[in-house]
Amino acid sequence: MKVTKTERPLILVTNDDGVHAAGMAALIEAVSEFGDVVAVAPQVSQSGMSHALTLKSPLRLKKIREQKGIIVYELNGTPVDCVKMAFDKILPQMPDLLVSGINHGSNSSLSSIYSGTVAAAREGAINSIQSIAFSNTNYADDADFEFMKSYVKRIVKDVLDNGLNKGIFLNVNAPHLDPANIKGIKICRQAQGVWVEEFDQRQDPMGTNYYWLTGYFNNAEPDDEETDEWLLKNNYITIVPLKFENCDHQEVVNLKSRF
Amino acid sequence: MKVTKTERPLILVTNDDGVHAAGMAALIEAVSEFGDVVAVAPQVSQSGMSHALTLKSPLRLKKIREQKGIIVYELNGTPVDCVKMAFDKILPQMPDLLVSGINHGSNSSLSSIYSGTVAAAREGAINSIQSIAFSNTNYADDADFEFMKSYVKRIVKDVLDNGLNKGIFLNVNAPHLDPANIKGIKICRQAQGVWVEEFDQRQDPMGTNYYWLTGYFNNAEPDDEETDEWLLKNNYITIVPLKFENCDHQEVVNLKSRF
Repeated sequence: MKVTKTERPLILVTNDDGVHAAGMAALIEAVSEFGDVVAVAPQVSQSGMSHALTLKSPLRLKKIREQKGIIVYELNGTPVDCVKMAFDKILPQMPDLLVSGINHGSNSSLSSIYSGTVAAAREGAINSIQSIAFSNTNYADDADFEFMKSYVKRIVKDVLDNGLNKGIFLNVNAPHLDPANIKGIKICRQAQGVWVEEFDQRQDPMGTNYYWLTGYFNNAEPDDEETDEWLLKNNYITIVPLKFENCDHQEVVNLKSRF
Repeated sequence: MKVTKTERPLILVTNDDGVHAAGMAALIEAVSEFGDVVAVAPQVSQSGMSHALTLKSPLRLKKIREQKGIIVYELNGTPVDCVKMAFDKILPQMPDLLVSGINHGSNSSLSSIYSGTVAAAREGAINSIQSIAFSNTNYADDADFEFMKSYVKRIVKDVLDNGLNKGIFLNVNAPHLDPANIKGIKICRQAQGVWVEEFDQRQDPMGTNYYWLTGYFNNAEPDDEETDEWLLKNNYITIVPLKFENCDHQEVVNLKSRF
């Protein structure tokens, strides 16, 4: 399954909406001018799968498209499975860049923890690959992400030229707007808040209850132009630098006296 | 489905090995002296499910056991689904403590990112609940976690008495050892390293390739008593304070000049 080594930069593309999503097609088109693209993406939607791995069922990999400079595979697994499979079985060497998305729907703030699109970029960063997750607040399957290509190119070019510090990956979100109304790109922190769950209880025809997860994001921030939520609502494309390190080193010191 | 409000502290228990796992039974026994226990756990194993949510299929909830001070539910979802369902549909008020585990298998270092057991504790912390994930390096289904109860009690008592700072949750791992050989509990940082994947390629009877995810943890640390990996190998129970915040605030400053 290994792809032949090439001279141009090697770019790994994945997503969580599935290999046939319009957002991934737009992302491939946008990044293909920078290098050779190998896409490895889930066979079906893996929204909300976070950093999940497939451990209990076998994975099947299939090449579904090949043209000059672009090869696309589908895998019956999660976004993180796709990244791991690409590294181990498909790519001739580690890629120069990993891009994930363009996600149909926002991955701002805490959604970055639940998102499979963002997790794929996290998996890249864990493996020391420059990685960027792209999302748009438009959830529609037929969303037109044409306008995002110029922003994707600008951000990708910056990361290829200047790199990211070790352990850092980027979470990019764009508002669902007429392109003429977008004010630009802002680096920012993510909004603090919490998803409030309201499971929707229904009855099946046999009279048994079942539930659908629903909810809303409760933004705990005052109006503040520093957060991704606020900037998205105010027509900016946001870039939040995330890290995969989850140990709190200050608390290691603080808690030592207690044990 | 709501549980009646009680006078004692309310403790939510979950895991990722499934509601019938021996590790969860041991955990329930250990914490039940501190309060009333409600356990909401996956129907089947959800190992490696990280912070995944079930968005594409309906959730079904069933009470499977009730005795004085202990009620157990199963849910056909992920560990994080279980926590969200407990908060929204089962508990009479937010719990005083969330404990997850005892996981059959290590969740040290980077495994904390992939683990469903640790994710459940992260979901607790996101919702401002004191939360602790417990794991043991013994993967066996019939692992005897009897000896861990005294350690669980010591850690739970400390957290109930002294609390944890906002956004912090604890990742506790214990070595698979004769209890007499355990040297004690250490607060520490997690080891830096990476899981190296080696997908095991096989052929099904139809001649089609399939893959199982396998791999090993490549510890990038020198011998160092400050990391969880080293301490576990040297017979200590480790506590790593984790945080759910994944935005790097220093990088927000660093990157502003680039966009």
